[in-house]
Amino acid sequence: MRKTVLASLAVSAAILLGAAAQAQAPAGPPMYGTPGINLEQAQKAIAAAAAEAKKNNWYMAIAISSNGGHLVAFSRMDGTQFASINIAIHKAKAAATFRRPTKAFADAVAAAPGNVALLTLDGIIASEGGIPITNAEGKIIGAIGCSGATGAQDGQACAAGVAALK
Amino acid sequence: MRKTVLASLAVSAAILLGAAAQAQAPAGPPMYGTPGINLEQAQKAIAAAAAEAKKNNWYMAIAISSNGGHLVAFSRMDGTQFASINIAIHKAKAAATFRRPTKAFADAVAAAPGNVALLTLDGIIASEGGIPITNAEGKIIGAIGCSGATGAQDGQACAAGVAALK
Amino acid sequence: MRKTVLASLAVSAAILLGAAAQAQAPAGPPMYGTPGINLEQAQKAIAAAAAEAKKNNWYMAIAISSNGGHLVAFSRMDGTQFASINIAIHKAKAAATFRRPTKAFADAVAAAPGNVALLTLDGIIASEGGIPITNAEGKIIGAIGCSGATGAQDGQACAAGVAALK
Amino acid sequence: MRKTVLASLAVSAAILLGAAAQAQAPAGPPMYGTPGINLEQAQKAIAAAAAEAKKNNWYMAIAISSNGGHLVAFSRMDGTQFASINIAIHKAKAAATFRRPTKAFADAVAAAPGNVALLTLDGIIASEGGIPITNAEGKIIGAIGCSGATGAQDGQACAAGVAALK
Repeated sequence: MRKTVLASLAVSAAILLGAAAQAQAPAGPPMYGTPGINLEQAQKAIAAAAAEAKKNNWYMAIAISSNGGHLVAFSRMDGTQFASINIAIHKAKAAATFRRPTKAFADAVAAAPGNVALLTLDGIIASEGGIPITNAEGKIIGAIGCSGATGAQDGQACAAGVAALK
Repeated sequence: MRKTVLASLAVSAAILLGAAAQAQAPAGPPMYGTPGINLEQAQKAIAAAAAEAKKNNWYMAIAISSNGGHLVAFSRMDGTQFASINIAIHKAKAAATFRRPTKAFADAVAAAPGNVALLTLDGIIASEGGIPITNAEGKIIGAIGCSGATGAQDGQACAAGVAALK
Repeated sequence: MRKTVLASLAVSAAILLGAAAQAQAPAGPPMYGTPGINLEQAQKAIAAAAAEAKKNNWYMAIAISSNGGHLVAFSRMDGTQFASINIAIHKAKAAATFRRPTKAFADAVAAAPGNVALLTLDGIIASEGGIPITNAEGKIIGAIGCSGATGAQDGQACAAGVAALK
Repeated sequence: MRKTVLASLAVSAAILLGAAAQAQAPAGPPMYGTPGINLEQAQKAIAAAAAEAKKNNWYMAIAISSNGGHLVAFSRMDGTQFASINIAIHKAKAAATFRRPTKAFADAVAAAPGNVALLTLDGIIASEGGIPITNAEGKIIGAIGCSGATGAQDGQACAAGVAALK
């Protein structure tokens, strides 16, 4: 029964996507025109960030997002607090969608009492440990987010992840 | 005061993004490495969809999203029901992130009683009127979503929007 | 204390809403007017705000909402950070539903530490760049929200959008 | 009626959980075990599921959660639709927190029209491709979720991931 459902869905999709799309993509689904960071790069960055964390005895969740904020890869080191899962993902997404390290927000809020107004900006996270990842041309292809230790330590692990892709 | 806050934020960001990024992007913020549909294309598609709707006396909300589901442009024709605002945006996002017309889901659910199980898939919308937009190579660069009339009519307006970019 | 906060906020709002609004509504806040902003007006305001942004090399998302906070039109200039999409929509909605520029909130929060209590008000956003749009009788017919540069720059682009409808 | 629905669901779950689980836990559902799945096991399961997907030209997002539903590891194969990110995570979480393959829900909903009532259960996802992961004693230590192809194909990739840990 389930098979029938899915088969019919696949057929509908094939018909709806039309002859043109089929001609250009005979096997598999249509691809996105704009791939960002790929999985191999993401895993390399995570491995480097995790190595930096391990060396320092830090327990961290490490997330890589595309430049649109979509999760590409994630690892939670054994022993990491559960809260850090969403925080790491949030930091990566914020670094990508605001195109700046999340430390910029932490610093701005700390600089003066009134700066807490920044906290109302949708999607913000005001803690170090989220850094955009750029390609050779300096364009943003994704971001890394780390959480589990102090903000500065999270940022240090993230920086190691970014450096691994240079 | 506010100026100081923002200036300090801008400075922090500049410092954090580092010398390399600055060298490659001396003016303005760093760009994303992967632009999808641009605003001019989005406005052209909306205009065509709106013309099709107007010709038929339909009142519609029309949304264009990037291939990652981010809103690029939106128009709510005067007289359109408020509920259609979010529905149009949802349809565009679903067409982009599921890489298929939302009609595929409406058809699958209608095909057999058990197919309602599909409704539990995150981000799904099972109504016609969301269509991916592809470039000359058949790759998805965005999507259009229309809402305000019947599903078939929403789909007809969307199709006019897609056709305008061929 | 609470009274002081709110009184100072009311004063800020009065100043920000300007002499014109005060002349037409010497007592109490500006009222909502009908009909609300239409799509043609919304597009005109967006075009003017975008022109102001382009002239200054700013990348912005620009949203127009009805006086009820419903999205009427939206444009994301090519190259604008993704985070600004939701922020621009939020600013327009807040300016409409609170009937004051969002700068009023940013200023109030910056004025004294205790004012952070304002951040718990549902729907608030304490950042410049959201302005109500009034008709010839000084009644609110919608609002504009801009995001992508500093708060002051977002506000400058918004003001250009508002001015285009005078 | 409600009783019938739930009884049939329990039967489906029992069948799906297989002979091994039944032998170790003849009465009642499988219990949670500690320690939970670790990162090394999670990465091994993801690698096996991804290899199965790659061999078949499927593009998938693959998530591993702890038995409490917390994300442990995640990989989005290059070219996978964005919608599958949240769906894969959701499937893993549902398989862990409901202690049964998500296929049980898809089957139950397909079995009779009235079973759509199941769709209101918090956290449910009625699509194949989420499977609990048990330790040598048959206790649940985590779960795997796959999304990107048909439900049956998602389930096949998940099964390969589970098998890699035996």
